[in-house]
Amino acid sequence: MLEKIAAALRAAKSIAVMPHISVDGDGLGSSLALCMALVNMGREAVVYLEEEIPAMYEFLPGRSMVKVYDGNVKHFDVVAALDTGDIKRLGSRAKLLEVGSVTVNIDHHNTNSGFALLNYVDTEASAVGEIIYNMISLLKQSIDSSIATCLYTAISTDTGGFRFSNTTALTHRIAADLVDKGVNVSEISRRVFELTSIGKARLTGEAIKALELFDNGRVAVIVIKDDMIARSGAVEEDCEGIVNIGRSIKGVEVAAMIREKGNRQVKVNLRSNGDTDVSEIASAFSGGGHKRAAGFVAKAEVEHLKIELLGHIEKALKSN
Amino acid sequence: MLEKIAAALRAAKSIAVMPHISVDGDGLGSSLALCMALVNMGREAVVYLEEEIPAMYEFLPGRSMVKVYDGNVKHFDVVAALDTGDIKRLGSRAKLLEVGSVTVNIDHHNTNSGFALLNYVDTEASAVGEIIYNMISLLKQSIDSSIATCLYTAISTDTGGFRFSNTTALTHRIAADLVDKGVNVSEISRRVFELTSIGKARLTGEAIKALELFDNGRVAVIVIKDDMIARSGAVEEDCEGIVNIGRSIKGVEVAAMIREKGNRQVKVNLRSNGDTDVSEIASAFSGGGHKRAAGFVAKAEVEHLKIELLGHIEKALKSN
Repeated sequence: MLEKIAAALRAAKSIAVMPHISVDGDGLGSSLALCMALVNMGREAVVYLEEEIPAMYEFLPGRSMVKVYDGNVKHFDVVAALDTGDIKRLGSRAKLLEVGSVTVNIDHHNTNSGFALLNYVDTEASAVGEIIYNMISLLKQSIDSSIATCLYTAISTDTGGFRFSNTTALTHRIAADLVDKGVNVSEISRRVFELTSIGKARLTGEAIKALELFDNGRVAVIVIKDDMIARSGAVEEDCEGIVNIGRSIKGVEVAAMIREKGNRQVKVNLRSNGDTDVSEIASAFSGGGHKRAAGFVAKAEVEHLKIELLGHIEKALKSN
Repeated sequence: MLEKIAAALRAAKSIAVMPHISVDGDGLGSSLALCMALVNMGREAVVYLEEEIPAMYEFLPGRSMVKVYDGNVKHFDVVAALDTGDIKRLGSRAKLLEVGSVTVNIDHHNTNSGFALLNYVDTEASAVGEIIYNMISLLKQSIDSSIATCLYTAISTDTGGFRFSNTTALTHRIAADLVDKGVNVSEISRRVFELTSIGKARLTGEAIKALELFDNGRVAVIVIKDDMIARSGAVEEDCEGIVNIGRSIKGVEVAAMIREKGNRQVKVNLRSNGDTDVSEIASAFSGGGHKRAAGFVAKAEVEHLKIELLGHIEKALKSN
């Protein structure tokens, strides 16, 4: 199937590449890398985002290829969604998929709904960056330091810096090859993992204060409310990674971050230490994800939702 | 030279392996891996430590080969120091070096003093774990999952989890091979980098709350008082690393943690982003350290000391 997709890309003149909304390092890095390789092949290629590039990823090369989608319908020979589990995660850009001649879906989420004409889902891949690394090789394009930087960032983000269980021998082999192509490892790591704004730091402090433990310390829950973000001088994207605070505490098996956005709008991120499948918990709320990382959105009052969520987590803990 | 050392190990019946005092993941992981390979070759081999195994490394295999040195002189055919820049870093175990038939020094610090008969210092190696990986291959021993776990921990520790600039393509290639031998990546990463106590997490929250910025955000100061530690349920050693919170904030060039211990007892840690030499600031208070990391202790009232310290930092910032 990857070869079929490569053939479609070769045959196309114009290609739109789209990662999921609230784009992360894997979505953006993979999209930029693919787009750069396509431009190197003489194709007209663009990365469409739903929002502006998050500040922490502004260092990535290839930003000139990025457009924030303006909602206008525009035809492309190939429209490729990357790192996108289902069509909802494209937001308004789903329109572009509707009018593309060939639609492509390249992903590694086991919940992927197969929404395109050509679907390639490799759940063994730590990141879509690994798949795009192979794709660029299928397209017989070379990897320069810009593409390598994007792919290393993609893989680094989704493996938590080669720390999560999705890190395989192949992940390290690909990383080795990318370092050979000229990646600045410490600079990428600093940007992706270390550097933080004072707002995000303050929000982290608020989050730790708000952290609650349940089930004898096996479950950690952090509720982030609007006033905490305002008080911290933080922005919405600073909530990313907050759920990992709970997961990092000794004894915690399942961690949840509940983001209460205004009135009865709730977004939940779930993380597991690996024994509990949090994608099953998420799917009880019409969400999805992986065994160790999942999430959902809901319309609910936050305290109600927390109790319901804790019930599901407790059941999942007991059954493993 | 590595081949010469391998020959000496092959020829020996009894071997003592010793990492530096205050052992870290590279020192301990490398020593355990080498010792296991030697035992697999039928040699009598032991790892001598100056202190007990640190709690965070208790998960490493091969603990039964470890002895805390009791100060008695004992003869070994080969005595090998690993990851040890100079003989002082062996503490009381320097005695074993004195009576060993053949002494060996395997290291990657560019300051290594070459204190043994056979010295192998590879400053390109991210960790001594990389060198021991090669040594085990020279000894024609296979790497099982226990040895792989020790070597992966060694490399992972010294590269900050594949994040520091010492991470090379070879580092990733060796890591790939170790994963193939059966390493539990997420478990090691969790133990080495992630797991924290709820007390340390709460203290981190308190520290962020206490964080103050000066000089237009170029200086970050965190004062940790006894009541913050008590309120968090933290212990003294949880203060380690708190200074890095300040350093990780965008725009901060110098970060300080001031630990007020009881009455007028103050301990200060300083970190710099590299432009300012904090060892010079520390030496103004009779302390010391490196350009990027320094510290001192003082008898002073904390608010007074803070003002004095800020004066010195400001001067250092202006002069660079």
